[in-house]
Amino acid sequence: MHKNRIYNFNAGPAALPETVLEEIRESFLNFDGSGMSITEISHRSKWFDDVINDAVARTKRLLKLDEHFHVLFIQGGASMQFCMIPMNFLADGKSADYVDTGTWSSKAIHEARLQDKPIQVIASSKEENYSCIPENLQFNADARYVHLTSNNTIKGTQWADFPDTGGIPLVSDMSSDIMSRPLDTDKFGFIYAGAQKNIGPAGICMAIIRDDMLENIPDNLPSMLKYTTYTAKNSMYNTPPCFSIYTVQLVLKWLEETIGGLDKMEAINQEKSDILYNFFDSGDFYRGTAKLSDRSKMNVTFRLPDEELEKTFVALAMEEGLGGLKGHRSVGGCRASIYNATTLSAVKALVDFMKTFERQNG
Amino acid sequence: MHKNRIYNFNAGPAALPETVLEEIRESFLNFDGSGMSITEISHRSKWFDDVINDAVARTKRLLKLDEHFHVLFIQGGASMQFCMIPMNFLADGKSADYVDTGTWSSKAIHEARLQDKPIQVIASSKEENYSCIPENLQFNADARYVHLTSNNTIKGTQWADFPDTGGIPLVSDMSSDIMSRPLDTDKFGFIYAGAQKNIGPAGICMAIIRDDMLENIPDNLPSMLKYTTYTAKNSMYNTPPCFSIYTVQLVLKWLEETIGGLDKMEAINQEKSDILYNFFDSGDFYRGTAKLSDRSKMNVTFRLPDEELEKTFVALAMEEGLGGLKGHRSVGGCRASIYNATTLSAVKALVDFMKTFERQNG
Repeated sequence: MHKNRIYNFNAGPAALPETVLEEIRESFLNFDGSGMSITEISHRSKWFDDVINDAVARTKRLLKLDEHFHVLFIQGGASMQFCMIPMNFLADGKSADYVDTGTWSSKAIHEARLQDKPIQVIASSKEENYSCIPENLQFNADARYVHLTSNNTIKGTQWADFPDTGGIPLVSDMSSDIMSRPLDTDKFGFIYAGAQKNIGPAGICMAIIRDDMLENIPDNLPSMLKYTTYTAKNSMYNTPPCFSIYTVQLVLKWLEETIGGLDKMEAINQEKSDILYNFFDSGDFYRGTAKLSDRSKMNVTFRLPDEELEKTFVALAMEEGLGGLKGHRSVGGCRASIYNATTLSAVKALVDFMKTFERQNG
Repeated sequence: MHKNRIYNFNAGPAALPETVLEEIRESFLNFDGSGMSITEISHRSKWFDDVINDAVARTKRLLKLDEHFHVLFIQGGASMQFCMIPMNFLADGKSADYVDTGTWSSKAIHEARLQDKPIQVIASSKEENYSCIPENLQFNADARYVHLTSNNTIKGTQWADFPDTGGIPLVSDMSSDIMSRPLDTDKFGFIYAGAQKNIGPAGICMAIIRDDMLENIPDNLPSMLKYTTYTAKNSMYNTPPCFSIYTVQLVLKWLEETIGGLDKMEAINQEKSDILYNFFDSGDFYRGTAKLSDRSKMNVTFRLPDEELEKTFVALAMEEGLGGLKGHRSVGGCRASIYNATTLSAVKALVDFMKTFERQNG
């Protein structure tokens, strides 16, 4: 860790690889010899074409996407996708199945219902306070898609495997675990991810769409809300958020060239989360809140013996240079988000701090 | 101009004040003592609250907005506003008047019609190849609003004054001239501006909405497409594009503290555009394309004697460190965009180059 930097456990916006930040800084007043900042170059220039094309190519290589998939960049975050998905895919009156695993799934469901789309919630872990992923799902054979949230940032649960839907395309919000592990993309018709957790800064959402999902999108949707607008124009129908896409490109380059791909990234993420969960399980001062088999490798949620101690823990950690450990405002408790860019050193420093804190307060 | 930087006449994304770029660079790995980059801090933190609140406060001071106006930040650029405006303001079947002054007005009209809204195009300069602003407008008394594009980036025309609508709120796309001059905001119900020309980088649109325009917005619109979502949550219903808003904040600070406000900015912009137009008018090698009274002070469009010369002009200028002088791909010719951040020195350097080029090719 460099001087004046903290260990960043924020849930999003979150830590970025330090080498990426340094590269942005170094070239900030003169991008790629252009004599302009990345924030000043035209999106219709060779410079920016190279940026966005490289980001797309790296995404395809990292996720091993075949030629049926298109990689798009859309503004508005995952929240905009919550409304665009039913608008684009359910225009013909078809229904879709949704799995409810927490706040973000619920918002996706809410936005589909706002549009009077005939969707069905086929499973929910609400009764278990969203501490687990539902099992034994039954799908409606006529569903256009099955929507699920692959990782639940707030409650700290994650789908370890994806269900067999019998051929119905999966549509998944992967905002908080995209590129954290290899993916069997055959099951997916549409994947989307706000960049600000694992692959970049806020202000850009990556969307990956399979050819067949582009059929039946109505022509008369607003241009900016129609996936075909983005596929037709390489995500540049209007001015894209150049800086955000550039940062995503650099993070993907770091994933490929520094980390060595998603198998390697998964192993590192496994090691980081093992360290934390094994530490919890070795005592009873810190308690993990998610069901063991459904624990997230990205967002590690935990409680201390009481709320006062939790407050002290978060405040003292911050003083020691460990930031972002407060749980989501809707649920309280503590949370360490350990996305791709959070280092093994950061996790070890956190465990060291937790041991000391327990000794002094246990 | 610093070493390795060019004079940037891009139409957008465009030049930013060099001191703003330097400030971003200096604090890029440690924003405001947080130990994190601006791209890594939580949007729910005191740090980011200060950024967005300062951006809002500066906007209100610079434009002298009274308490009836709300300043919002929305993703998707002006193009997203083209669909949101009719969606929000014409839900009850009311009509609106649109003035057509070029590509961007036409797109706004197209997006309203896609939604089957009963809008009327009350005037157009299409027959004049959009080289002027229509005069003697007649408004429909029952129009919910009158939409116009205050400055036309592609054709280089600008509304010098805004029409008296007899109380119908003006709705204006000010993407390419917001904050370039003081504004009599009394006439406006809604103002919007993609930031990437005069106030920041791509990826954020500023929207200014008057209280009365918030009435009658239907509750059942998608959350991300409803202005009331943004007013209720200080533009942070979901994760906002933090970096882009931060850059806007710094540009607004530069406008207030370095330039000294919009009267001063207008005087500088007047001087810059006078230099260019007076130079055109003193000879016949370079010909301005817009009607004299409607010439834009932001986008100076011009032609050379023939297209081959124009190509040589643009290429040679680039070699001399003067970038972005090619006209929009839809119309050809040349264009010098001289937004707020384009300096007087840049304009003088351009005129010097033009004189030399004319001597050698005239």
